Amino acid sequence: MSATHFQLDAQGRLQHFLTIEGLTCRHLTEILDIAESLHGVAERRVKKLPTLHGKTVVNLFFEASTRTRTTFELAAKRLSADVLTLNIATSSAVKGESLLDTLRNIEAMQCDMFVVRHSQSGAAEFIARHVKPHIAVLNAGDGRHAHPTQAMLDVFTIRRHKPDFPSLRVAIVGDILHSRVARSLIHALSILGTGDIRVIAPRTLLPAQVENLGVRVFHHLPEGLRDVDVVVMLRLQRERMEGALLPSEQEFFQQYGLTEERLALAHPDAIVMHPGPINRGVEIDSRVADGPRSVILEQVTNGIAVRMAIMSITLGHHARPVGEEV
Amino acid sequence: MSATHFQLDAQGRLQHFLTIEGLTCRHLTEILDIAESLHGVAERRVKKLPTLHGKTVVNLFFEASTRTRTTFELAAKRLSADVLTLNIATSSAVKGESLLDTLRNIEAMQCDMFVVRHSQSGAAEFIARHVKPHIAVLNAGDGRHAHPTQAMLDVFTIRRHKPDFPSLRVAIVGDILHSRVARSLIHALSILGTGDIRVIAPRTLLPAQVENLGVRVFHHLPEGLRDVDVVVMLRLQRERMEGALLPSEQEFFQQYGLTEERLALAHPDAIVMHPGPINRGVEIDSRVADGPRSVILEQVTNGIAVRMAIMSITLGHHARPVGEEV
Amino acid sequence: MSATHFQLDAQGRLQHFLTIEGLTCRHLTEILDIAESLHGVAERRVKKLPTLHGKTVVNLFFEASTRTRTTFELAAKRLSADVLTLNIATSSAVKGESLLDTLRNIEAMQCDMFVVRHSQSGAAEFIARHVKPHIAVLNAGDGRHAHPTQAMLDVFTIRRHKPDFPSLRVAIVGDILHSRVARSLIHALSILGTGDIRVIAPRTLLPAQVENLGVRVFHHLPEGLRDVDVVVMLRLQRERMEGALLPSEQEFFQQYGLTEERLALAHPDAIVMHPGPINRGVEIDSRVADGPRSVILEQVTNGIAVRMAIMSITLGHHARPVGEEV
Repeated sequence: MSATHFQLDAQGRLQHFLTIEGLTCRHLTEILDIAESLHGVAERRVKKLPTLHGKTVVNLFFEASTRTRTTFELAAKRLSADVLTLNIATSSAVKGESLLDTLRNIEAMQCDMFVVRHSQSGAAEFIARHVKPHIAVLNAGDGRHAHPTQAMLDVFTIRRHKPDFPSLRVAIVGDILHSRVARSLIHALSILGTGDIRVIAPRTLLPAQVENLGVRVFHHLPEGLRDVDVVVMLRLQRERMEGALLPSEQEFFQQYGLTEERLALAHPDAIVMHPGPINRGVEIDSRVADGPRSVILEQVTNGIAVRMAIMSITLGHHARPVGEEV
Repeated sequence: MSATHFQLDAQGRLQHFLTIEGLTCRHLTEILDIAESLHGVAERRVKKLPTLHGKTVVNLFFEASTRTRTTFELAAKRLSADVLTLNIATSSAVKGESLLDTLRNIEAMQCDMFVVRHSQSGAAEFIARHVKPHIAVLNAGDGRHAHPTQAMLDVFTIRRHKPDFPSLRVAIVGDILHSRVARSLIHALSILGTGDIRVIAPRTLLPAQVENLGVRVFHHLPEGLRDVDVVVMLRLQRERMEGALLPSEQEFFQQYGLTEERLALAHPDAIVMHPGPINRGVEIDSRVADGPRSVILEQVTNGIAVRMAIMSITLGHHARPVGEEV
Repeated sequence: MSATHFQLDAQGRLQHFLTIEGLTCRHLTEILDIAESLHGVAERRVKKLPTLHGKTVVNLFFEASTRTRTTFELAAKRLSADVLTLNIATSSAVKGESLLDTLRNIEAMQCDMFVVRHSQSGAAEFIARHVKPHIAVLNAGDGRHAHPTQAMLDVFTIRRHKPDFPSLRVAIVGDILHSRVARSLIHALSILGTGDIRVIAPRTLLPAQVENLGVRVFHHLPEGLRDVDVVVMLRLQRERMEGALLPSEQEFFQQYGLTEERLALAHPDAIVMHPGPINRGVEIDSRVADGPRSVILEQVTNGIAVRMAIMSITLGHHARPVGEEV
């Protein structure tokens, strides 16, 4: 069984949510439709549903990320789950316990879902392969590999503005090489049948054979932006500057920063996205980030509904036998 | 619109709770009356009310304070809110995100209330001015400026023992200069019409023109304590000792420490208060702190009810349109 | 009133849970029976009971322990309590507040239960003696003295496999000297009338007069394991290696490590236990730890039910007057 199909059960239903690769348009559309119905919950006076009442969701963060952890914690709480946050890096490592022993112990505490963030690619899948069958594992970012919930909130945000994927032109701009966000988003856009997916980046920030992902490659920003409906700016990891990959932040902004002038080359209705946190003046000008075409904060809001949807779907496929209920 | 009125809506109702300045006796009395009705909740077997069920309260602590954070967390949970605690100092700062971008992101997660603690004066107001209109902001202490929930729990505690403010003599003793507690309390006592408000401190620990706040100034403790009904001792910030402001802890206690002998100069029914944590033997003798006239621990208990009242009132003024309810 | 009886009220009912010493078979059996009924809750679709709804449980951890803290937190949440976790070591110590003042403040916040972990023996009892009468205190490990909830989950696990204590042979192996787990377990086994309790350790890792606890002492592992029904391996604290007490991990494993070969000397149905986290290859071989006789992960699962039982029992004996209910 390949890694990409491991997250599905025998009926092809999502048991875990590890990667966008290998999913079908039907899987993605189910998530988007349920997220749409949950989106209204946050607008209500009482922002909670009883869906996961009595369930325990464990945040296993091996890599710090307040923002991502917070959105998962809120999503779980709005579904009435109990949430436990374990910063594994600083806890069990102290007593020299192995990752698998830590996992075994947490699952023995009768938890229902692990949300995993790790700096190593494949960590979430490794955990999913080793937990008990009743536990759902969600990948909240693993190394350079994947960040599938981010990709789903991105396509959810796109669909709310531009629902016809086959006619869409989407440009992803910046450090594609190190970006798990870009990788997952390209897969999601492909599966949904997006007509034209472009990546715009210097050669040093592109993975080898990136064309094989079904994208068109541009090295010149104005050329790549022409007529696009969606511009996705990636965060420039400042630590890359240290190495030889990039000259300087100023020079990067000069060539790949999104300004109002450059955005004018896109379709007049184009929306601007960014996974956050943004580096103002590095990959994006403040007037664009805060301007009328930006949907960056909508992405954050949508992230809650999308994660609630994914939690509901995967745990729904792990239901216990009915005879044991209260 | 002046800073002091910014926290009120067009009808003069509390939208935020940032400072005591500019509030009316009606505002304060409403808080005290609701706190009184909530006070009994903690005595019940089930210490919870459904008032904030489905609401998300975010603790934004830029300055560490386990004690204050805990009372706000308990108050929110006893109103059935979901609580999220973000230690901003150590999280988003890591990725170099600006304060406003952090705020924008948290509010995009559909939160309802921010409880803000910050070492800079005006921080809570700055945040209140920049959040979306549906969010209530509570000031949990900003620099030397204000600590309005502490002032409210102080006057709540006083009112439970001595309800007639016009006839009251209250003495506030110690480091007035650096104390946001003293500043907020003086405002609250004035608004409630307290007959005689005194500050007792060495010249080096008094702000310039302190008389303009409507207080009488004493430099000699026995003289200032004479016949008072309430003695509020302030915490001496030990770090002040380093500079030239104070000679030594021993000498401070000698001149301004509250002992049983000195307390005998006050009214026989006088109560002794302190915002905590106390420095035994520095500003207060243990026999007084633990004695029959001390209401220091009542203040802690009352702090929960008062914060529940302020949360209920401010969020009640942000109600969403009724049509969207569940 | 002796320390061992302090945890009981005038009717002999558990008010706190500080130590196994001084309890009767009836006390232990009540806990085990209630834990048995709660054990099924974790198997249900909704893993929550309303028992402690509206109660506030405070984790006072003066010593870090993610694992133990997590099991108490889960137990409290599954009983619908609000849970507050205070890492005292790093918080109030900052402002130089004394332990008693910290306690007074937390209890003034109307909390109902303190779960205490401390590196000093007697800390939990000290706290129980000083809190207000309505607060229940649970010992989550105090120095070398006791770890009574661990002992209860151990005997609960044993009883589920081998319910007839008088006919049982139990061996406890390893560092008895420093082990609060061993101390509490020996007491629990004695009270339940266990027929044969053995300790197996080098002389340097045994307390003086250990025989007075009612155990048989062995220094030779194969001899001590003969025909036992239960083997409890203790965690070797690696920091002991530094001193003169032990030669090396390899040598310890050589003499006291549990291997399949040695386990063959025990009864064919013998179960293997360990409080965790295990040191693979130091006190136990991986084939034994992960083998069919190991119940190590069952112990973790049982720990939740046992702690839920102890929380329910002790708080049940602190009920407030009925007239004040909602």
